[in-house]
Amino acid sequence: MNLSHLNTTFAALADPTRRAILARLASGEASVSELAAPFAMSLPAVSKHLKVLERAGLITRGRAAQWRPCRLEAAPLKDAAEWLEEYRRFWEESFDRLEDYLHELQEKEKTDGRNS
Amino acid sequence: MNLSHLNTTFAALADPTRRAILARLASGEASVSELAAPFAMSLPAVSKHLKVLERAGLITRGRAAQWRPCRLEAAPLKDAAEWLEEYRRFWEESFDRLEDYLHELQEKEKTDGRNS
Repeated sequence: MNLSHLNTTFAALADPTRRAILARLASGEASVSELAAPFAMSLPAVSKHLKVLERAGLITRGRAAQWRPCRLEAAPLKDAAEWLEEYRRFWEESFDRLEDYLHELQEKEKTDGRNS
Repeated sequence: MNLSHLNTTFAALADPTRRAILARLASGEASVSELAAPFAMSLPAVSKHLKVLERAGLITRGRAAQWRPCRLEAAPLKDAAEWLEEYRRFWEESFDRLEDYLHELQEKEKTDGRNS
């Protein structure tokens, strides 16, 4: 796992517009103006987000002079997912505890029902 | 999945000190001075990182006046992992392509070996 890129990967993902751009690119390559269309945003503002994504290695741009399509590059997401995976046992534990608690409540209700 | 917390979660994870603090808390509760010990950092600097983690819901602090132990809260990490999971097919695809390419190279080498 390459840890040195996690700073820029997570920073790039901390913005909802950038996450929406990646979601759009998941369905195929797109030009800057296609990417800008769903947002109430100027082209330069979208271009700024694309630069952040490009520096983070999350997208690449085509070489064609006029239409430089953006393409999703998922490798940095793999490293981020692997980092998070180390913590899975913690969130699963907390859901187990919640489930135990709900089960206890249900049992208590049954007992209370029988006793009343 | 609660998407509104993803901004603060990913922003909190974009710093190596904050990720190291979470890794330390994965092995159990710790006080601020225990957390500060491995870093060449002042207590106020570490406290600042803890505030970011606390606001992101990634840690909670105990109530004891003197020793307020920090504790890992993994629920926001689950949402971040689920967001990333949507992109798994893309990083698996790129590894498949790499594997295919390496396999092709090996086959080519074998053929070249037989022909020389």
